[in-house]
Amino acid sequence: MIYKIVKKSKKSKARLGLLNTAHGKVRTPFFMPIATKASIKSLTVKEVKKLGAEMILSNTYYNYLKPGKNIFKKFKGLHNFMQSSLPILTDSGGYQVFSLANLVKIKGDNIEFKSHLNGSKHILNPKKVIDIQVALNSDIIMVLDECVGLPIDKDNALLALKRTTRWAKISLDYKNKLNKENKIINKQLIFAIIQGANYKDLRLRSSKELVNMNFDGYAIGGLAVGESNDIMYKVLDYTIPTLPENKPRYLMGVGYPENIIEAVKKGIDMFDCVIPTREARHGKLYLKIKNNLNGNFYKTININNSKFKNDKSSINNTSLKDYSKAYLHHLFKINEPLSLRLATINNLEFYLTLMKDIRKDIKDNRL
Amino acid sequence: MIYKIVKKSKKSKARLGLLNTAHGKVRTPFFMPIATKASIKSLTVKEVKKLGAEMILSNTYYNYLKPGKNIFKKFKGLHNFMQSSLPILTDSGGYQVFSLANLVKIKGDNIEFKSHLNGSKHILNPKKVIDIQVALNSDIIMVLDECVGLPIDKDNALLALKRTTRWAKISLDYKNKLNKENKIINKQLIFAIIQGANYKDLRLRSSKELVNMNFDGYAIGGLAVGESNDIMYKVLDYTIPTLPENKPRYLMGVGYPENIIEAVKKGIDMFDCVIPTREARHGKLYLKIKNNLNGNFYKTININNSKFKNDKSSINNTSLKDYSKAYLHHLFKINEPLSLRLATINNLEFYLTLMKDIRKDIKDNRL
Repeated sequence: MIYKIVKKSKKSKARLGLLNTAHGKVRTPFFMPIATKASIKSLTVKEVKKLGAEMILSNTYYNYLKPGKNIFKKFKGLHNFMQSSLPILTDSGGYQVFSLANLVKIKGDNIEFKSHLNGSKHILNPKKVIDIQVALNSDIIMVLDECVGLPIDKDNALLALKRTTRWAKISLDYKNKLNKENKIINKQLIFAIIQGANYKDLRLRSSKELVNMNFDGYAIGGLAVGESNDIMYKVLDYTIPTLPENKPRYLMGVGYPENIIEAVKKGIDMFDCVIPTREARHGKLYLKIKNNLNGNFYKTININNSKFKNDKSSINNTSLKDYSKAYLHHLFKINEPLSLRLATINNLEFYLTLMKDIRKDIKDNRL
Repeated sequence: MIYKIVKKSKKSKARLGLLNTAHGKVRTPFFMPIATKASIKSLTVKEVKKLGAEMILSNTYYNYLKPGKNIFKKFKGLHNFMQSSLPILTDSGGYQVFSLANLVKIKGDNIEFKSHLNGSKHILNPKKVIDIQVALNSDIIMVLDECVGLPIDKDNALLALKRTTRWAKISLDYKNKLNKENKIINKQLIFAIIQGANYKDLRLRSSKELVNMNFDGYAIGGLAVGESNDIMYKVLDYTIPTLPENKPRYLMGVGYPENIIEAVKKGIDMFDCVIPTREARHGKLYLKIKNNLNGNFYKTININNSKFKNDKSSINNTSLKDYSKAYLHHLFKINEPLSLRLATINNLEFYLTLMKDIRKDIKDNRL
């Protein structure tokens, strides 16, 4: 069985589950640290695992451009290349190609674009994106989708939705064909991505069309693109009930700790977000201030603030208890590379501990 | 006893020793990884210790400018601030103030300068440099010296020598005074720095004057400033015999592995150099190719070279045996921060293993 629900909360729609991947079982709800370019900022996968990660995310678009598909064929996948003993989900790159690449044109099912790195011309399409992810040997393949920003008018949202549905069908059929031809080494799962912006009828249509195709799991895309929490939560409220109970649900690119808790309560099982690693780079630290998840259970500090110059207190009480805020302040002020590393460790540990706490609270019907 | 010679090689003037510091005994000959600004590039002291370091080096000039002496007073020293369980030697900053600062003027015993960071005006003098190092609570204090480049005419070399001698006397007297007044918490050792460029009579004079003052150890400064190996070795050949047998000898800022081996054979006990950490930043890796120290026992590679793009072989056979050269090549090509970390680990481990091998070879009279 791919996904098994172990327990449902009596207090909300939250659930505990076990997701079975080629590289091991993962407990849901979980959060994936981001290794966009086959590397988590200044940390090895071994180190991220120690902090509590059970799965990581990498990106098809970036890995396709550099180091390129052939490297992954040679290494028999991303796990060997980056030395990951953890399962890996690879994002399809749909979001990146539309937001990063230049001169993007859609012709039929082909996306023509120029690399944001060196201007070289490329074409991606649903099958090619599957081929790349088969070479990456990721545990979860995401289908190519068209992710639109918010707000967007309904006509364009519908166009993107139709394309996303068509591409999902092409992707699934092609992946099944490769499976039959024994061209896929490991069991690779494949997830579809529900689009439809913030139009209820479009979301329901997208969900219905994709659920009918019977994917291994379902992602909700096109959120966390600058909209308010209200809009995001409303979309979740009408979309999640349309998803099959017994399949994993993945909310892409979300979010702040309170967004994650809220989405878990609504029945989401999987998360990824750049926040902990990106904000670490700027010295924003996530710190627990309570032993439970009620109310304001955490705070953020900007370690660059001069008030930390003489602060002898520990960065946190766990992995960085030996190091003072004053020391980390100093490292940021002089741009020492250790600053990024310590801040990233702090933030990832915060997010991964949050997920542990969430799982415990679901178990105890507190969430 | 501050320094104890444990064994003299039967094959050269190399010696094995034990240097007693406030933070533990250190086996000579040793190499100090550089934590100029209270941080080793992307590594904690705990990690550097695991790679084999027994002592590290930090810098008075940098720490004085940022984070400043008061922080170190508050933390009761650099060890607490940066969490170093290893002994620390602090360079006096003489070299840095003359090479980095702006509008440097010497008036009497005061060096007036503007910070290279923000142009702020400062004065350093021998006593102030001791005060800062007392605040840093370093295990070995280096006296303020005037380090001149090579080549230099004899008149100017003599001027710098005279100043260095006068400043050494002021430093030692002042440090003894502080000791008597119980203003120094731990046992801090104090080393003098022999100058004199490549003029034999000046080097002998500098050595004689400083040895007469009875310091805890002696450094040879003003080398590794761009001169040939021949000049460096010649200076060592006539300077080392003038140094007391029973005190540690420190060759500052040297150097390549072959320079270190040669200097050990001539009787040097202590080394520091930016090479392993600085060259790591540019992707230059030091790799052992033999199990002994004869002939070409190592090679360097530039991991940026495209020939490593598909190289599945391990970076090294020790700490980084799990990671391929192709992966590190990829990390450098996309500027991932993990690249600096892995390369620094490789190079520091190479240098620290070199010192272990050197000590073993002295023990067995092979070097």
